[in-house]
Amino acid sequence: MSEIAEHLKKDAFAKFLGIEQFQCADGSWSVRMRIEERHLNGLEGVHGGAVFALADCAFAMAANTDGRVTVGMQASIAYVASAKPGTVLVARTKEVSRRNTVSLYEVEIRTEPGDALIAHFTGTGFTLKKV
Amino acid sequence: MSEIAEHLKKDAFAKFLGIEQFQCADGSWSVRMRIEERHLNGLEGVHGGAVFALADCAFAMAANTDGRVTVGMQASIAYVASAKPGTVLVARTKEVSRRNTVSLYEVEIRTEPGDALIAHFTGTGFTLKKV
Amino acid sequence: MSEIAEHLKKDAFAKFLGIEQFQCADGSWSVRMRIEERHLNGLEGVHGGAVFALADCAFAMAANTDGRVTVGMQASIAYVASAKPGTVLVARTKEVSRRNTVSLYEVEIRTEPGDALIAHFTGTGFTLKKV
Amino acid sequence: MSEIAEHLKKDAFAKFLGIEQFQCADGSWSVRMRIEERHLNGLEGVHGGAVFALADCAFAMAANTDGRVTVGMQASIAYVASAKPGTVLVARTKEVSRRNTVSLYEVEIRTEPGDALIAHFTGTGFTLKKV
Repeated sequence: MSEIAEHLKKDAFAKFLGIEQFQCADGSWSVRMRIEERHLNGLEGVHGGAVFALADCAFAMAANTDGRVTVGMQASIAYVASAKPGTVLVARTKEVSRRNTVSLYEVEIRTEPGDALIAHFTGTGFTLKKV
Repeated sequence: MSEIAEHLKKDAFAKFLGIEQFQCADGSWSVRMRIEERHLNGLEGVHGGAVFALADCAFAMAANTDGRVTVGMQASIAYVASAKPGTVLVARTKEVSRRNTVSLYEVEIRTEPGDALIAHFTGTGFTLKKV
Repeated sequence: MSEIAEHLKKDAFAKFLGIEQFQCADGSWSVRMRIEERHLNGLEGVHGGAVFALADCAFAMAANTDGRVTVGMQASIAYVASAKPGTVLVARTKEVSRRNTVSLYEVEIRTEPGDALIAHFTGTGFTLKKV
Repeated sequence: MSEIAEHLKKDAFAKFLGIEQFQCADGSWSVRMRIEERHLNGLEGVHGGAVFALADCAFAMAANTDGRVTVGMQASIAYVASAKPGTVLVARTKEVSRRNTVSLYEVEIRTEPGDALIAHFTGTGFTLKKV
């Protein structure tokens, strides 16, 4: 199992939320979460904090590769649609920019099946050290 | 118990994370969370997603008053410092702007005791209806 | 000339900054700006405000089509690199989501030639009316 | 004239837009801009890019003190209301956090007179060197 896949294993919060890593058809790694009752807000849709956490895990997985230790410095999220219990949410990550100290990633959260856009996230990472 | 305090009771995700509402000395309501092992990331600090969720709950509590039903549309968070297990994080909310459809709130997440700034959050709400 | 191309003609600030519309090879419309002395900050690189304005014009051009009147509600920008006088900056816009009232766009600002990423922008629009 | 007041003198873009520094009643320095025809968008309100630039100048003035050279890394703006030609916009800056490398500022843009909130800005600075 690759270094990327190992990253999430140490992430207690991801485990607590039921966020899982999986390997995409193209060999890359991503994360997903099935919406359960515990992920809901007061309006019975998925909680914005749970959607953010899923995107944040995908971002962390992408930013902490190649022996880097990168922490999140800033993140923004735009919510496009709500989602109900039973739906699986999948995160798709894109590296926008990666420099020595600062890196920038984009994450889309979509339903599976259906591929409907639920939220769009951007995260800025700060690399503490490179091994 | 006030309408604001009632809001969080229906929030399953807040309950799952151990986020609690409490009444401040000035009578206003806020939220707090004690950092446990389950809130940690792979670097053994509090997970950015858990800090965001706490801020998001404070934002939702502030935005859903006066019979309004408001959903989060956009949010940004800047992380200033990490925090360790056992620390209590408290959210302080400020209303920046509140109009018929769109409202804007700022939330600071600080340690208690110590009052160290952990993160700064801004959230934009979209009001679906007013009773 | 298309409705999109007409939009920027009424934009006095774009004209003042030297922002021009042009038609891409694929027929779509975009905007560009040659960096002049007047666009510089105190460190002699292009001013963050000028880069933002270019991205904002691209966003407005994309959001105000099909008879829509859309205003910017929120925007975020991440700066990736600086750029010097004489460089031409080009904006590339992508529609992330478009609904009745709220829409979301992404804009990349790149150098031409060279295609180096200078900044990454996301903008949320609020549609006031549809003709 | 103080080091802060000196900063803006080298800012060609601020000068081009008519952004001026002034000393507040409490001795601190701030920036302002009178909205002219050249600052307007296609809807005849002040252009979002001009409002952003004013906030960005206030942010840069605050972040580049004490011999620091700080560049903007990320910024977010939320637009609350429009404003018409003849109105003076004033920026009020608050330091949220200032560390060795990364600093965070908040800026409110308000009308004068009237003190109506036009926009709320947050900016993250990256300090390149300290003299």
